Amino acid sequence: MKDKLTFIGVIGGGEVSSQVAGLAEEVGREIARQGAVLVCGGLGGVMEAACKGASDEGGLTIGILPGDNRRAANPHVKIPIVTGMGNARNVAVVKSSQAIIAIDGSHGTLSEIGHALQNRIPVIGLNTWSLSIDGRADDGIIPANSPKDAVNKAIELINNRE
Amino acid sequence: MKDKLTFIGVIGGGEVSSQVAGLAEEVGREIARQGAVLVCGGLGGVMEAACKGASDEGGLTIGILPGDNRRAANPHVKIPIVTGMGNARNVAVVKSSQAIIAIDGSHGTLSEIGHALQNRIPVIGLNTWSLSIDGRADDGIIPANSPKDAVNKAIELINNRE
Amino acid sequence: MKDKLTFIGVIGGGEVSSQVAGLAEEVGREIARQGAVLVCGGLGGVMEAACKGASDEGGLTIGILPGDNRRAANPHVKIPIVTGMGNARNVAVVKSSQAIIAIDGSHGTLSEIGHALQNRIPVIGLNTWSLSIDGRADDGIIPANSPKDAVNKAIELINNRE
Amino acid sequence: MKDKLTFIGVIGGGEVSSQVAGLAEEVGREIARQGAVLVCGGLGGVMEAACKGASDEGGLTIGILPGDNRRAANPHVKIPIVTGMGNARNVAVVKSSQAIIAIDGSHGTLSEIGHALQNRIPVIGLNTWSLSIDGRADDGIIPANSPKDAVNKAIELINNRE
Repeated sequence: MKDKLTFIGVIGGGEVSSQVAGLAEEVGREIARQGAVLVCGGLGGVMEAACKGASDEGGLTIGILPGDNRRAANPHVKIPIVTGMGNARNVAVVKSSQAIIAIDGSHGTLSEIGHALQNRIPVIGLNTWSLSIDGRADDGIIPANSPKDAVNKAIELINNRE
Repeated sequence: MKDKLTFIGVIGGGEVSSQVAGLAEEVGREIARQGAVLVCGGLGGVMEAACKGASDEGGLTIGILPGDNRRAANPHVKIPIVTGMGNARNVAVVKSSQAIIAIDGSHGTLSEIGHALQNRIPVIGLNTWSLSIDGRADDGIIPANSPKDAVNKAIELINNRE
Repeated sequence: MKDKLTFIGVIGGGEVSSQVAGLAEEVGREIARQGAVLVCGGLGGVMEAACKGASDEGGLTIGILPGDNRRAANPHVKIPIVTGMGNARNVAVVKSSQAIIAIDGSHGTLSEIGHALQNRIPVIGLNTWSLSIDGRADDGIIPANSPKDAVNKAIELINNRE
Repeated sequence: MKDKLTFIGVIGGGEVSSQVAGLAEEVGREIARQGAVLVCGGLGGVMEAACKGASDEGGLTIGILPGDNRRAANPHVKIPIVTGMGNARNVAVVKSSQAIIAIDGSHGTLSEIGHALQNRIPVIGLNTWSLSIDGRADDGIIPANSPKDAVNKAIELINNRE
C-alpha cells in the first residue's frame, strides 16, 4: 500500500482540568492537520479532548477500549477497538502507535510510558511525569513546549526511523 | 457521531486453498461495497484475501496483529493494531466485530468462533466448522450459501440488534 | 529444579448439571492422586467441582481468573492468578497446561479447545464437543471413557512429550 | 479455605548488577521465611535472584511468563504460568500480587509500578524509580531501607487491608 498512514498515540488521565483538556484538544487538532491518525484508549479526559480536536479537523481517531462495550467509547472515536482486556489494553495503545504524546498523567499513563520506553517507542511529554532512579534523571521522555511542538517532534522521530 | 461505522469480522485459516481465498476475497469485496469496515487478524490466508477484496473496492481494513511488528500485516491492511499479545489478540478481533464471517477454518478460527458465541456476537459460516455436543448439533453458526449471502446476513443481524 | 511439577488443565462450563459436576470432581481427585497440579479458570461449575476434588485429595489448584478480584475464585482455588483480562485469560489457562481435559462444555470451553489445538497442547474430552469441517470429523479431541481414563491419558501424553 | 496464602510480587530489571541481585535474593528469602508466596515475571535478573532466595528457604515461587514456552522460566520458578501475551503479562504479575516490592528497575518495572498504583496495590521501593509531575513528588512508592524492611512493610500493608 503506497499511502501508508502515520499513527500517533495520545495518552493522559481520564479526568483532567480544563487547561489540560485544552492542551489535549490542540494536540489532536495538530495530529489531524498533519495527516496522521490518532490512537488512544478511547475513554474520557485527555483521550476525549484529543479525539474531539482531531475529529473537528476531519482526522481519523482510533480508541482501544478496556471493556466489552463499544458504546463506552467517547463520541469522537471513529474506530473503536474492543478488547475486553482491562488495563492490558494499554499495551496495545502503546504498540499501535509509532510515537506517543503524554499529557499530564495518571498512574495509568505512567504504565503506558513504561511500556513505550521498554519497546523503544518515542515518548514526547507535555506537563507529564519526570522520572529518576538513584538520583539520576531518566531522559526517556522528550519534553515539548507546546502541542504543535509535540506533534512536530513525534512526526520527525517517526520519519527519521522509517 | 452521526455516521456510525459498521464493523464486520472475517476469520479463517492463515494458509488456505485458492478456492477458499477466492471466497474470502469476495466476502471482503462485498463488505466494502456495502460500506462496512473489515476487521481481521491482519495476517495471510483468509485474512489477506478478504483485505485485498475490501481494499480493491476502496473499503477500510483493520488488522489486529498478534506480534510486535506492524510490518507483519498483510499489504492490504490499512489500519494495523499492534497488540504483542499472541493468540489473545483473537479475543480483540472478535469483540471489535459486530458480526463475524467464518470461512473454512483452522483451530485458531475455532477459538474465535467460541469467543464470539460466548459473547453473543453472531457468527455466519461459509464452509466452516460444524459443532455438536452429546450428539446434539449446536446451532450457533448461521450457514450462508455465498459470500454475498454471508455479508447480507451479517448486516441484517447487526441492524436488527441496534 | 529436579522435582518438576506436572500441570493439567480442566475446562468446562461455569454452570453445569450435578452429573457433569460429579465427573469434574472425580477428574480433580484423580489429578491430585497422581501428583499433578490442576489448572483452571478459577470460577464455578466444572472449575469449582474439579478444584474441590483435587483439594479434597490434598492437591494443588491454580485458578486463572478473568476479573480483577481474587475473591471471585471458588473456595477450592489455592493459587489465584488475577489477570483482569476477561476472556483473554482463557489463553493463559490453556498455555499453562501441558494437557487439557475438556468436560461437557460451553462456548467458552470451545474457545479453549481451539486455543489448545492451535498450540498443539493435547485435549482429552469427556462428554464434550464434537467437531467437523466440510463433513470431515476433526480428530483433535482424544476421547476418554471415564475421569480416571482421562487423567491417565493426559499424563501419558505429557510424559511421552517430555 | 481457612489457610489463605499471602502473595507478594517482586519486580525489577531482567539484567542487573550483582549488588542488586543480592538485594533481590534477600527479599526472596525473607518472603519465604515469613510464609508468603513470591510472584514475579519468571525470567532473569531480579526475578531469578528473588526466586532463588525464596526457593532456598523452601518457599513457593510463581513466574508469570511473557512467552509461549514454560522452559523460559528461571530454574527457581516452581509454578510457571504461561501467557504468550508479551508485555501484557506485566498486568497479571501486578494484579496477582497483594503488595509489590520494586527493586532497582527498568522501563518494564516502571510499567508495573504504574499498573500497581492505578489498581491501588501497594508498592514498596528498594533503590527504585522516583516519580514527580509538574515539580510535585508522587508519594505512591513507599520507600524501604532493607530487604527485611520491604517485606515487613508489604505484609503489614496486606494485613491491614484484609
